[in-house]
Amino acid sequence: MQKHAHATTTVESHAAAVAHLVTPAIEARLSRSISVTAAAGRVAAADIRSPVDLPLFRNSQMDGYAVRVADLAVTSSLPVAGVIPARPGAAVTLPVGMCMRIMTGAVVPTGADAVVPVEETSLDGAMVTIHSAVASGAFVRTAGSDVHAGAVLVRSGTRLAARHIAAIAAAGIAEVVVRDRVRVSVITTGAELVSPGANALPGQVFDANQSALVAAIGECDAEISVALRVVDDHDAFVAALAEATVDAQLIVTSGGISQGDFEVVRDVLEPLGARVGHVAMQPGGPQLLGEVRGVPVVSFPGNPVSTQVSFAVFLRPLLRAAAGLPPMQPTPVRSKDKISSVAGKRQFLRGMLDGETVEIIGGASSHLVATMARANVLVDIPAEITHVEPGDTVSVWPL
Amino acid sequence: MQKHAHATTTVESHAAAVAHLVTPAIEARLSRSISVTAAAGRVAAADIRSPVDLPLFRNSQMDGYAVRVADLAVTSSLPVAGVIPARPGAAVTLPVGMCMRIMTGAVVPTGADAVVPVEETSLDGAMVTIHSAVASGAFVRTAGSDVHAGAVLVRSGTRLAARHIAAIAAAGIAEVVVRDRVRVSVITTGAELVSPGANALPGQVFDANQSALVAAIGECDAEISVALRVVDDHDAFVAALAEATVDAQLIVTSGGISQGDFEVVRDVLEPLGARVGHVAMQPGGPQLLGEVRGVPVVSFPGNPVSTQVSFAVFLRPLLRAAAGLPPMQPTPVRSKDKISSVAGKRQFLRGMLDGETVEIIGGASSHLVATMARANVLVDIPAEITHVEPGDTVSVWPL
Repeated sequence: MQKHAHATTTVESHAAAVAHLVTPAIEARLSRSISVTAAAGRVAAADIRSPVDLPLFRNSQMDGYAVRVADLAVTSSLPVAGVIPARPGAAVTLPVGMCMRIMTGAVVPTGADAVVPVEETSLDGAMVTIHSAVASGAFVRTAGSDVHAGAVLVRSGTRLAARHIAAIAAAGIAEVVVRDRVRVSVITTGAELVSPGANALPGQVFDANQSALVAAIGECDAEISVALRVVDDHDAFVAALAEATVDAQLIVTSGGISQGDFEVVRDVLEPLGARVGHVAMQPGGPQLLGEVRGVPVVSFPGNPVSTQVSFAVFLRPLLRAAAGLPPMQPTPVRSKDKISSVAGKRQFLRGMLDGETVEIIGGASSHLVATMARANVLVDIPAEITHVEPGDTVSVWPL
Repeated sequence: MQKHAHATTTVESHAAAVAHLVTPAIEARLSRSISVTAAAGRVAAADIRSPVDLPLFRNSQMDGYAVRVADLAVTSSLPVAGVIPARPGAAVTLPVGMCMRIMTGAVVPTGADAVVPVEETSLDGAMVTIHSAVASGAFVRTAGSDVHAGAVLVRSGTRLAARHIAAIAAAGIAEVVVRDRVRVSVITTGAELVSPGANALPGQVFDANQSALVAAIGECDAEISVALRVVDDHDAFVAALAEATVDAQLIVTSGGISQGDFEVVRDVLEPLGARVGHVAMQPGGPQLLGEVRGVPVVSFPGNPVSTQVSFAVFLRPLLRAAAGLPPMQPTPVRSKDKISSVAGKRQFLRGMLDGETVEIIGGASSHLVATMARANVLVDIPAEITHVEPGDTVSVWPL
């Protein structure tokens, strides 16, 4: 059986089709309540509001002396009525005409309306002399001056960084509701594949795609449901698909979608309605998009470079968005090399970006997996560009 | 007891002192062998070399027909001698005057010196007609054309990304030796502290620093050894320090280092030789640097904003470097606001960067922990700058 090539689509059109199928599925994942201490990097599933005023109570911004400013109109020396540490305890009352030693964070005594930093005072026995002018409210943090009870601390959809965690914990919130991480199943296919560490017989190759996809998915802060390898036949792939759908919002496969005689992914999924596209791109031309038991299946060609580039182009943006990670942005830089590109195909070359100049690494061949490890960007040559001269501007994407 | 202020040092000088103490300790951590599939984000502890040529064997770059180019000088139509799938098996021999159907990745038969893509052929019964000129070597990937056995795939010190994992797995390497993650113990101190979720009595505040430091350390790809809270006395802090040293390369503390009467961190560590510095910065002036049982102790003031800024300034660069993460870079942007800054102090304001303009969030007060959650950068005002006008350029660091 010689399979027919399908109509060619653009990268942009296939990317839109993948997003249309995958985004609702990954956005439909569940939420859960977790400890604030474990919530870093997770995405808030709802607005998080402060249940309290912050600060909780009027407290001192400095180590120093709590004073009544009116008293200082009369004298600059005040007797010390006591010490207020930053310890539990209700507000004490400052006697008129006196001051109290106070520590940073301690409750400002009732009647006091300013704190004088210790550096601006001198102590002689039980008397403190104040060397500076003191304004009412100086170095006093009022309750609610940071945030009022009921105000939003963190918006729904925010990826929680340390500063968000700090605000949530400061408000006394021990648990937060976050989105589950997207769960992805990986199935690599190819009769020639063996595990790294195995003894490769003639004609066998080590499966680079399983580890690479697991790593790339993890870099997008998604989780692996299962990672399976199918080296054989139709039934084995059907069984792998069944396992892959159990607990995942997305299935990614590599291999088996091209025009060879033995294309297990295509042979199984095309009769189930999957769309086999030839996308006008290099590497990564053959692409398949389907659905099994309601779980989207995004299938990439099996060459390790094609798999990695396909992931970066079609799935990385969606998974990063789901994890609240900022979108990768293309950067215009100068090409060090002359580049030829096939008319009508968008080409993603591997490049080594050094400052504002990019050098092409390894050319267009999609089997150069070791060479790709030396690259740090994808060089994006639009479909309509066929020649780039050294010094011309090209767009690069971070790898 | 009224403690003496110590000589003031610069941010740069204290940062150098922290680096001098901490870097050797965190670089002395152990290495271990782990599965390549689990190695994403880890730092290679040695050069990783390919034990094999890649590709392992001469194989086809396309689905098509393996040919002997010399035969095509005579005819453009060749009988098909058989099919070579991408499956285990040694090279077969291509009969003279014939071609063989071959799949992408399959072993190129002995005698064949090119592959013709299926798109450039037509099949009529058992005869294939070739419609294009064929060059010797076309679409044949030679063994070792990607990398030769013995060559370095990944340099020591590289943080392993998906593309490195792909290259390592493709070379058949199942285990790699990586640096352990840096292990950090966190001790927050303060008699006024209670856990988020607890019922705060008057004068008590929720401990934001434990969760925030745990999150910030995790963002630098370091691990937490223990996270302890000391709300009370000297002995409790001594006990916490003992626990913190058991299995960590670094201890971070918050609180207890200022000029108050009850400064547990300072009271315990200063007699052990710790250096208490007043650093010319806002927030975060008081800073302490010590060592307990050979483990560096870096102590920050307890205001949550001071703690977070101190971490970003003094520890984040060191922990990111240890994890192979790229250094954070300051970016020049335009200030939306007028800024006043104390002469002689480097000020780190919280800012919201929007495009190329930064707005100051919440002013200089170090208790504005909820307000800080809305910031996305630190605005770095050098010690010698006292005024910034709207439209002036300022440097910002990512948060």
